[in-house]
Amino acid sequence: MPTYRTEPEDEGRLLVQGPDRPGIVAAVSTVLTDIGANIVALDQHSSDPHEGQFFQRTVFYLPNLTARLPELSERLHGQLAEELGLNWRIVESKRPKRVALLASKSDHCLLELLWRQRRGELSMVVPMVISNHPDLATDVRQFGIPYFHVPISAETRPEVEAHELGLLKGNVDVVVLARYMQILSPSFLEQLGVPVINIHHSFLPAFIGAAPYDRAKERGVKLVGATAHYVTQDLDQGPIIEQDVVRVSHEDSTADLRRLGADVERRVLARAVEWHCEDRVMTFANTTVVL
Amino acid sequence: MPTYRTEPEDEGRLLVQGPDRPGIVAAVSTVLTDIGANIVALDQHSSDPHEGQFFQRTVFYLPNLTARLPELSERLHGQLAEELGLNWRIVESKRPKRVALLASKSDHCLLELLWRQRRGELSMVVPMVISNHPDLATDVRQFGIPYFHVPISAETRPEVEAHELGLLKGNVDVVVLARYMQILSPSFLEQLGVPVINIHHSFLPAFIGAAPYDRAKERGVKLVGATAHYVTQDLDQGPIIEQDVVRVSHEDSTADLRRLGADVERRVLARAVEWHCEDRVMTFANTTVVL
Amino acid sequence: MPTYRTEPEDEGRLLVQGPDRPGIVAAVSTVLTDIGANIVALDQHSSDPHEGQFFQRTVFYLPNLTARLPELSERLHGQLAEELGLNWRIVESKRPKRVALLASKSDHCLLELLWRQRRGELSMVVPMVISNHPDLATDVRQFGIPYFHVPISAETRPEVEAHELGLLKGNVDVVVLARYMQILSPSFLEQLGVPVINIHHSFLPAFIGAAPYDRAKERGVKLVGATAHYVTQDLDQGPIIEQDVVRVSHEDSTADLRRLGADVERRVLARAVEWHCEDRVMTFANTTVVL
Amino acid sequence: MPTYRTEPEDEGRLLVQGPDRPGIVAAVSTVLTDIGANIVALDQHSSDPHEGQFFQRTVFYLPNLTARLPELSERLHGQLAEELGLNWRIVESKRPKRVALLASKSDHCLLELLWRQRRGELSMVVPMVISNHPDLATDVRQFGIPYFHVPISAETRPEVEAHELGLLKGNVDVVVLARYMQILSPSFLEQLGVPVINIHHSFLPAFIGAAPYDRAKERGVKLVGATAHYVTQDLDQGPIIEQDVVRVSHEDSTADLRRLGADVERRVLARAVEWHCEDRVMTFANTTVVL
Repeated sequence: MPTYRTEPEDEGRLLVQGPDRPGIVAAVSTVLTDIGANIVALDQHSSDPHEGQFFQRTVFYLPNLTARLPELSERLHGQLAEELGLNWRIVESKRPKRVALLASKSDHCLLELLWRQRRGELSMVVPMVISNHPDLATDVRQFGIPYFHVPISAETRPEVEAHELGLLKGNVDVVVLARYMQILSPSFLEQLGVPVINIHHSFLPAFIGAAPYDRAKERGVKLVGATAHYVTQDLDQGPIIEQDVVRVSHEDSTADLRRLGADVERRVLARAVEWHCEDRVMTFANTTVVL
Repeated sequence: MPTYRTEPEDEGRLLVQGPDRPGIVAAVSTVLTDIGANIVALDQHSSDPHEGQFFQRTVFYLPNLTARLPELSERLHGQLAEELGLNWRIVESKRPKRVALLASKSDHCLLELLWRQRRGELSMVVPMVISNHPDLATDVRQFGIPYFHVPISAETRPEVEAHELGLLKGNVDVVVLARYMQILSPSFLEQLGVPVINIHHSFLPAFIGAAPYDRAKERGVKLVGATAHYVTQDLDQGPIIEQDVVRVSHEDSTADLRRLGADVERRVLARAVEWHCEDRVMTFANTTVVL
Repeated sequence: MPTYRTEPEDEGRLLVQGPDRPGIVAAVSTVLTDIGANIVALDQHSSDPHEGQFFQRTVFYLPNLTARLPELSERLHGQLAEELGLNWRIVESKRPKRVALLASKSDHCLLELLWRQRRGELSMVVPMVISNHPDLATDVRQFGIPYFHVPISAETRPEVEAHELGLLKGNVDVVVLARYMQILSPSFLEQLGVPVINIHHSFLPAFIGAAPYDRAKERGVKLVGATAHYVTQDLDQGPIIEQDVVRVSHEDSTADLRRLGADVERRVLARAVEWHCEDRVMTFANTTVVL
Repeated sequence: MPTYRTEPEDEGRLLVQGPDRPGIVAAVSTVLTDIGANIVALDQHSSDPHEGQFFQRTVFYLPNLTARLPELSERLHGQLAEELGLNWRIVESKRPKRVALLASKSDHCLLELLWRQRRGELSMVVPMVISNHPDLATDVRQFGIPYFHVPISAETRPEVEAHELGLLKGNVDVVVLARYMQILSPSFLEQLGVPVINIHHSFLPAFIGAAPYDRAKERGVKLVGATAHYVTQDLDQGPIIEQDVVRVSHEDSTADLRRLGADVERRVLARAVEWHCEDRVMTFANTTVVL
């Protein structure tokens, strides 16, 4: 029984990004057709037809894809990188992303992801969950996933982050902060070398930082939201992948906002992780293009 | 043909607000029942059952309401103000609010309100539209409503505001800024003496101030919103009456955000004005309770 | 550690329903005030001020509630039933509803309810889960809840339903069909004697009956939905408690509709169960009033 | 001042539809690139990668497009029709669709479209409004659009429809029924020869036919909706272009549902007309693909 969403054998995803110019779509489709691939789906976007940034995600089928990757890569390098000055990368759809989940005490985002993964909705495997608290160990381990309890404090941060890097590096393709209530140091992010997705419990850029539900209650907003974004060195300022909101009213206490918001958080984070694992999300100028 | 929403003859609305304590609901209903009124609808809210703020909106039917208002008021004063220390006011449902609309060049919020009023959806009459531009005169006048073109600049503000006060004072119960792109001076607000409702083209507190759609595009948000709020002396900081959002994506230009957001603005402002005209909105500690 | 949402000691809920007439609100609040209770929240609705049906839900605080229930009941009987011809019942908020969950093979609705209950979001205890399949036993039992595997077929239905009635009667206050793919016989419903809530995987009355997602795909709808309703003897025709929808497009296969719809199902069912457990839902003429 | 949304000079839209097979995307992009066109945007969809139906909408820029249409058409015919067995058509973006609006007494859908057109949001011109009632003449004519009052009854239908065909044929590209409360005869539809878009005031397939809001109230649904669809000879059964819903409750009367639903109707119809005018909507097997 597969424990993750399986994608077709011999299906590839080609991601292309760079300065827009005439002929990119034709160049990509010609390379793929010439080598015998069939385009299954194609999405592209240009930030501006005149001198904008171009983005394309192409899903294709090519018999014997794994074996033919070197040849295909060589052709793409020649056509896309050398001729057109574009960045590109190619991914085999069948390889699930290796996702480490970092959590603290809240279970809602973490369990939502593990449950969706088990259900086959996410093209990911979870090699480990790391938490600075022991509370969620039983819940996680019954999914057959290792749970590493790694306490952290201001004093221990340098050693603990080094330990975490030892656990993560080489073993994961992306790190997801599923309501992990610690800030990662710039040095950690730099050494980690893979994208980090965070869920912030407000509709950014409203209520950046701590205690957003308390501040939402105080301000009397009529909707509360959640934001999934890539982590950068600036707190809550990274490229936004997905956001959503839920209606609230004067009847809802701060605890109600927290409870209603938790449902939005898990929905928003699940969508962001799904899209990331499907190689749909490209970043540019601190924003995302979701193809 | 009525040109506004008509409410039943002999129907009243009693608004009560003050420190919560046991027995308020019973006191209100006893006064109403004793005088021969029938409670049609009752909504109440307490910010906290222990020492919170209490709010109640009661709709009642009392034959000959207009004639019996003095007697009812006297009883309410005794029971609610003197005994229980509450603020209260009473409104005859049949009297539409007199609403002045202030606009600049954008037509969408202004026409939405005029059209809904003509359709009988809003319990309001519009004695005048004031604009600092002449553009919308024809559109407004075909609704049979006077349009006063009152240009304004930094230099002329004091005299112009004095002129506007002359037009408004005594003639209107509420002023609605339907995308009026001028800031009202603290002195104007103070002398005006009636509530002012503004529509801000962002999901507050995100993007306070100018050019919110440009900043939303730059930040790469996945939803844009609008906020209707009462105007205070602090820009975009007054009590929020209503908010809503619409989904956007990387495909949408700033112009698209503006266009999609305009639909949210008119919907949100229309709801806020509707609720205000129905005496549903009470304020407390810079937030609103919408009953 | 409480395993369900706990409500305040000495808090009661009074539900009143019957033909509307002047004075009901005052009568209820007078009885409560006279006995020393404090009204915490009050919601009422009249289907029509003239000869409609009246509904009221009042939350009150009365010291020593349990001990004083007989006295309060006697007064309510006199004032509400005898004088005004109304139905009423009184509930102690602190007593969680006893909810049996019936499921088949799908885990999403079942786990959502168990997880929310464990999290303290639902005022319910779950004495048992009954399923006609063994698949979900492990998932359920790790919540510490008994799982009874009760296979059923057309031939065995009478004996199996009798067995199920033996398990349920006297032990539960409400039965929730969390994607239970069997139809309950009229006789079962009648003997059961408690409400049954079902989640149907379409926006009723569209796509009554089997395979709604297949039919939604075939019809090319742009939204799919889910409906929580009380079960009556007419398939998918009972009073609707809650509904919601999610946007879909031509890109979504029937499998995608099923997956996207599953999220709506669990959200809608959770809300319906929450409201039922809070005694918010009253029925009238095959519809619900949710106060 | 343009009275409709203007699209760029020399921009074209190529619509392709037919049995899916490898190489279509490459063939299209090669033809366009070879003739000197630059692909601005490309959306495609396959109902099934194996023997499904293929759809593609390509927006391109070609200097001197009008003059070069014959040459481009010849090449497309050779490559797409003869080689690949596909249907295709080409449209110059700058030509607005000519849209006739048919209405009865309700103004909300009609005015919404006229207002959005004047605002420059819709790539359409409106050569005429036809109504079987005189009520909306003044409103329409102030937009500078001819209003033809054409009463109709069961007895006069054949002559009236012949008269309407005389007004419409050759003068319009699409007919929009903006709450036109008459059924068009099969013969009328056949002779008309252009697509007809209708707005139905329910979430189809729920509440097909007359009085959907009354039936929604009776059934006690918690959302009401609207559906824009192409008209076929089967009442309310044509391909759905767009749908949306709004939340309602037991507090809303049938009149409230009608009022709240009207807002959904105008929003849904506006989106459907916008997409149709942008050549985004393709039909297949009684469903639509919106690219």
